[in-house]
Amino acid sequence: MTESVNMSLLAVHELSVAALSCQGFSLEQAEAIATTVTAAERDQCQSHGLFRIPFYVKASANPLTDPAAQPELSENESSVVHVDAKDGFCPLALEMGLDPLAAKTSKHGIAALAIHNVYNIAALWPEVESLANRGLVAMAFTAANAYVAPHGGTKALFGTNPMAFGWPRQNKPPLVFDQASSMSARGEIQLHALEGKSIPAGWAIDSSGNPTQDPNVALQGAQLPFGGHKGSSIALMIELLAGALIGDLFSYESKDKDTLNVGAPFGGEFVLAIDPVACIANGDKSTALLRSEQLFAKLLEQDGTRLPSDRRYRAREETMKKGVNIPKKIHDQIVDFT
Amino acid sequence: MTESVNMSLLAVHELSVAALSCQGFSLEQAEAIATTVTAAERDQCQSHGLFRIPFYVKASANPLTDPAAQPELSENESSVVHVDAKDGFCPLALEMGLDPLAAKTSKHGIAALAIHNVYNIAALWPEVESLANRGLVAMAFTAANAYVAPHGGTKALFGTNPMAFGWPRQNKPPLVFDQASSMSARGEIQLHALEGKSIPAGWAIDSSGNPTQDPNVALQGAQLPFGGHKGSSIALMIELLAGALIGDLFSYESKDKDTLNVGAPFGGEFVLAIDPVACIANGDKSTALLRSEQLFAKLLEQDGTRLPSDRRYRAREETMKKGVNIPKKIHDQIVDFT
Repeated sequence: MTESVNMSLLAVHELSVAALSCQGFSLEQAEAIATTVTAAERDQCQSHGLFRIPFYVKASANPLTDPAAQPELSENESSVVHVDAKDGFCPLALEMGLDPLAAKTSKHGIAALAIHNVYNIAALWPEVESLANRGLVAMAFTAANAYVAPHGGTKALFGTNPMAFGWPRQNKPPLVFDQASSMSARGEIQLHALEGKSIPAGWAIDSSGNPTQDPNVALQGAQLPFGGHKGSSIALMIELLAGALIGDLFSYESKDKDTLNVGAPFGGEFVLAIDPVACIANGDKSTALLRSEQLFAKLLEQDGTRLPSDRRYRAREETMKKGVNIPKKIHDQIVDFT
Repeated sequence: MTESVNMSLLAVHELSVAALSCQGFSLEQAEAIATTVTAAERDQCQSHGLFRIPFYVKASANPLTDPAAQPELSENESSVVHVDAKDGFCPLALEMGLDPLAAKTSKHGIAALAIHNVYNIAALWPEVESLANRGLVAMAFTAANAYVAPHGGTKALFGTNPMAFGWPRQNKPPLVFDQASSMSARGEIQLHALEGKSIPAGWAIDSSGNPTQDPNVALQGAQLPFGGHKGSSIALMIELLAGALIGDLFSYESKDKDTLNVGAPFGGEFVLAIDPVACIANGDKSTALLRSEQLFAKLLEQDGTRLPSDRRYRAREETMKKGVNIPKKIHDQIVDFT
């Protein structure tokens, strides 16, 4: 059994802030990153938890990043809010942009947030959950480093390009999903490689475009989009929304900014939010939410189904009471940063 | 070889208007439907072409539909435009809503159109193409009749729920995709049944939830979402956007309104549009469009790839010159309506 350290969520947050602060991050950047890292640990998404702190530290060694960046918000009369992350990390830029986005959405019914010039190694579900907690429907898109071949092609072009969706619920945490447009996360392939296990068919191709189940060959080749040409179209759409539309980089360009090859994609994030009040004919938001509960009940009537975020919320209930168990090796590595 | 009749696109349009007008459709409803039917024939999407006219006629025999409905537009200070289709068909409601949607989008940078109380048996690409032709980025969503089981489940709950995306190009027709969130279109399974051929593995399950490749068994059972749980999440998102959010029906409810079992889903459609001018930092739309051309060129460098809508545009060039060949059986059936 891996030796582990039990920590409260507060302790996870404090350790994260301390480690990042000691490694050249401004307190504001450190606090914002610590909040998303703690949220991931709370929901037992370990791959976005404390495990990420060394990634942030490594990424900050790249002279093109600024771990003390002060993002800049700009707004005008349009419903699109801009935050220039100034080569810093995404959590602080999001923290700055979400309130103005929510305000524009409540005013106009629909609005968007464009985050520019940002290193993004976090999940997207925290931002759509946060917006859904304010009663808004939300979608978020970001590109990544080029790891995924377009459908029919043989070379990596797209990122694992996630898309997230959040839907508010009354007296319950929001319905949220956050899914890569590739068959698997890159980390899953790396994990198979570490464990010396072959990967499932359909996840990847080698550098000549032939199917492979060897994780090391796959890491040199390209991952495949989920669902064939349909997932590939979604990956393309995400390149356009989080890249061309807002004037930021495509996945195939972002690698050049990741000079230390840490896997920290540089580019943009596009978030949109919709206020149900403006969308429902009678203007009564509760109608939309009550109706959605009918759909969820109907879905859950069927054995074998679940709502996308239920597993995370069950984990959350548990960790709020019992804290989290962090592998001692990761814990000690982060303590060493302080 | 099937006997066919060569027709100009103008003749397709005129025949459609004549047939629908003689069958109780108002001239406005008939003209709008004829325009989408003609666009489908022009692009060699035969399944949405003249082949659909008998569907429209059958659907209109349902006393709950109104083939002479006059849709009603409502706008207020929000960026969400509403069109109540008044139990008529979608093309006329869209025609009424797209200009106001484009105007709101140009004004605010992002806007949405909710179409309510509508029978929708058309494809979604015409509306996103039309918006992209005005220089806007567009997305459209609609639910359908319940044919698709949620991931992990065994019973049909979701529709084949398409999602469409349009991206403007300079001096070229827009990039457009329009894809069902099921593995296959329902029509493809029906076609396999007609031809006595088995369907590919993974398309459908029988009524007990076991995989089947028998198209007739599949039609009694349920179709499967594309890409496993990810496609299922997209189908769920579409139920929420085109159903709960705008106060219209879910796929599992829409069947009750299709009293003659024609397969004409009743519900809503949700369209959103984004103006690149508001999203790009320097406000210069041409930057976004030029950048996207770099991505498309990079994609097409790889053998075996194509842009989602290229096949339709090549077909379009051909039919503009040569007209379309309509199977005589379909042609005669429609002439009989006049």
